[in-house]
Amino acid sequence: MTTDYHCELAWLGGDAAVSDVVVRIDGDRIVDVDVGVAASPTAVTLQGLTVPGFANAHSHAFHRALRGRTHAGTGSFWTWREQMYAVAASLDPDRYQALARATFAEMALAGTSCVGEFHYLHHQAGGAPYDDPNAMGAAIVEAASEAGLRLTLLDTCYLHGGIGIDLDETQRRFTDGDVLSWATRTGGLGETPTVRVGAAIHSVRAVDPAAIEIVAAWAAERGTPLHAHVSEQPAENEQCRQAYGRSPTELLADHAALGERFTAVHATHLTDADVDLLGRHRCWCCLCPTTERDLADGIGPARHLRDAGARLTLGSDSHAVIDPLEEARAVELDERLASLIRGSHRAPDLLRTATEHGHASLGWPDAGRIEVGALADLTTVDLTSVRTAGADAETALGTVVFAATAADVRHVVVGGRVVVRDGAHTTIDVPAELAAAVRAVLP
Amino acid sequence: MTTDYHCELAWLGGDAAVSDVVVRIDGDRIVDVDVGVAASPTAVTLQGLTVPGFANAHSHAFHRALRGRTHAGTGSFWTWREQMYAVAASLDPDRYQALARATFAEMALAGTSCVGEFHYLHHQAGGAPYDDPNAMGAAIVEAASEAGLRLTLLDTCYLHGGIGIDLDETQRRFTDGDVLSWATRTGGLGETPTVRVGAAIHSVRAVDPAAIEIVAAWAAERGTPLHAHVSEQPAENEQCRQAYGRSPTELLADHAALGERFTAVHATHLTDADVDLLGRHRCWCCLCPTTERDLADGIGPARHLRDAGARLTLGSDSHAVIDPLEEARAVELDERLASLIRGSHRAPDLLRTATEHGHASLGWPDAGRIEVGALADLTTVDLTSVRTAGADAETALGTVVFAATAADVRHVVVGGRVVVRDGAHTTIDVPAELAAAVRAVLP
Repeated sequence: MTTDYHCELAWLGGDAAVSDVVVRIDGDRIVDVDVGVAASPTAVTLQGLTVPGFANAHSHAFHRALRGRTHAGTGSFWTWREQMYAVAASLDPDRYQALARATFAEMALAGTSCVGEFHYLHHQAGGAPYDDPNAMGAAIVEAASEAGLRLTLLDTCYLHGGIGIDLDETQRRFTDGDVLSWATRTGGLGETPTVRVGAAIHSVRAVDPAAIEIVAAWAAERGTPLHAHVSEQPAENEQCRQAYGRSPTELLADHAALGERFTAVHATHLTDADVDLLGRHRCWCCLCPTTERDLADGIGPARHLRDAGARLTLGSDSHAVIDPLEEARAVELDERLASLIRGSHRAPDLLRTATEHGHASLGWPDAGRIEVGALADLTTVDLTSVRTAGADAETALGTVVFAATAADVRHVVVGGRVVVRDGAHTTIDVPAELAAAVRAVLP
Repeated sequence: MTTDYHCELAWLGGDAAVSDVVVRIDGDRIVDVDVGVAASPTAVTLQGLTVPGFANAHSHAFHRALRGRTHAGTGSFWTWREQMYAVAASLDPDRYQALARATFAEMALAGTSCVGEFHYLHHQAGGAPYDDPNAMGAAIVEAASEAGLRLTLLDTCYLHGGIGIDLDETQRRFTDGDVLSWATRTGGLGETPTVRVGAAIHSVRAVDPAAIEIVAAWAAERGTPLHAHVSEQPAENEQCRQAYGRSPTELLADHAALGERFTAVHATHLTDADVDLLGRHRCWCCLCPTTERDLADGIGPARHLRDAGARLTLGSDSHAVIDPLEEARAVELDERLASLIRGSHRAPDLLRTATEHGHASLGWPDAGRIEVGALADLTTVDLTSVRTAGADAETALGTVVFAATAADVRHVVVGGRVVVRDGAHTTIDVPAELAAAVRAVLP
């Protein structure tokens, strides 16, 4: 059975929105896209601007519990990490699933159709495996399914507490002990039509060069995405240079991690040589602007990376806020703050970053576009809220990217399933579940 | 007749929210504040965190029509100004009133109780005065009143198209010809319990030193606020140095503009000497972070200014977005991006900036605090939305400042009058009026 959606305005990938677009969905796929047709009585009407679903390419779901809690007093990324570890220490599969389910549902309300969960909280406190060694990963898979999102589980290798530094008490939960044990455990994770498994190297701090090479080979063999935190903080660069005489990007390149399936998360403090490497290898660079603001990471070289050949994606990472539109415009706005130049990233470029690029970097090249054959993800943004009122067909893209917020998302279809209707999740009372799940994990 | 509001949580100026606060209002004033009392059956319940109303200390209401329209292609502050001038050219008192009324109502929905309108669109296209030479100012006064906001009309002196440069066609509407004519016209504006008149020097580009001195004297004589755009762009600094051998701040200091009633708007590109001057004179510095992002102005020295003795306020300026919470957190977040340090501005500092400071800088020292004798402004932010869920009494301030948005504002009382109830304006269909008013002024 097919369903027709009649979009008042839709973004089909060009420089402007298109009026009166009918999208026909059969199962989880788009099977027809007609432009300039009137609504039929049987079509579901989507008022506003409809875009492909957003891909959240970098998430640590459990960080949602920290929202509002890490802003008192002063500190750095590193003091923030202490607070984050305290929450991590309190999680078990049930609490993790409840928190991730509510967090993923908040993402759905913000128009997200797919999430890449950078997952390294594998084991029990102290480090012993659960009876099912993938119990935590399974909790995330179940959470995404219940929230209505597609998931790429980026199963993360985490071996060291720093370069040449032992794991601390909290970090023992993160490690499989050695890279082959990581590969063995990760190999036990199954895929479904809505779940893919990718690999992640936590960082050059937590994974040594020999292990980097093995994780990269594992991902290459399977053709899966490979993600890594790269140069989020100057201290990481200094430690890496001191230990290996090269930057994190250079180290990853030397050990065969870079390539078209590789995502460098953050990529904030890069040399020109790093930018050139990431560009030449056609890597993805996942910017997480609201987190990079929150953690005082700084402004990365987004335009420089793009001009070098890298492709940008977006993540809400620590979930200080969850708003793909705020992330998208922040790429341009923070670039303006650093360069004093407007218009490095245009509205359609930013939309593509938030949709097609993100999906492709997570291993879903057939999503993130409204076109025949693509996965049927539709996110509709209201153009009649106080924030967006005054928009017309010509200015809809600019208004949505630069002025709308997650609160303006009205309707979300993921793989043909209606997940958000009239601004409400179709199956989950999201604020209530968030409040309960956060309360349950606070130390 | 008095009204009691029972606040689940309220911010009374300290480092944390307080539970169960009853605020008694008589007319436009707070006459009692009781802490730790249960709700009486007759009290109006305010669920969430109640804070004093926000003051929007720098507004150009008509810029709201540009939202979503200036983001295509590349450009600078100066190319943006061309687009802004095109809208300015299309305004008359009726269209201005409709647009300002809808824009001010959008501010009310975002929790704003008072706006400082930096008003320089005085005359007819071409420059001839209206029959009532203050017809445009009167339109703004009426708009604020209908929207339910208090207003400080910052009547702006604008004489030149640049230092030593004649006015262009659009700018002729801005000028009174000479500073005495400005003073004469401005003197015809009346005040009411909800309207004050202040003075503004558009900038050192548009007002020569002799005129600066006269506007400053006019404001000093009346004890009114005096505002000026200061060093928003490097080009202004260069032009000022070239013409006068000193910075805009130094020029304003030399001509008696600085002091405790003076607000430097933007204050982005300052020397250490400028910061010292603004600090020593205890000036206000009105940051407009979302506009400064949008116009690629750069990141100003907010912490440095505060440490020097200046007091920070906030404005939404061009209304690229209208969200006092986004402005407030942007002060800290942009400081983090520039300094790579967290926690320069704590949540209560940012709330004070958004409330008490803004009101005082606009000539309302008896507003912006929830205390006996103050003007009765209350803004209540939902703590059970998807953005704020998980907050408790201890974390309410951090959550509201760093994660809530204008969409979470549920209830707004201005001077005792309920302006927003359950997220809706009590008298205006704001999105509909915005759409109509924007359409009416587009060139």
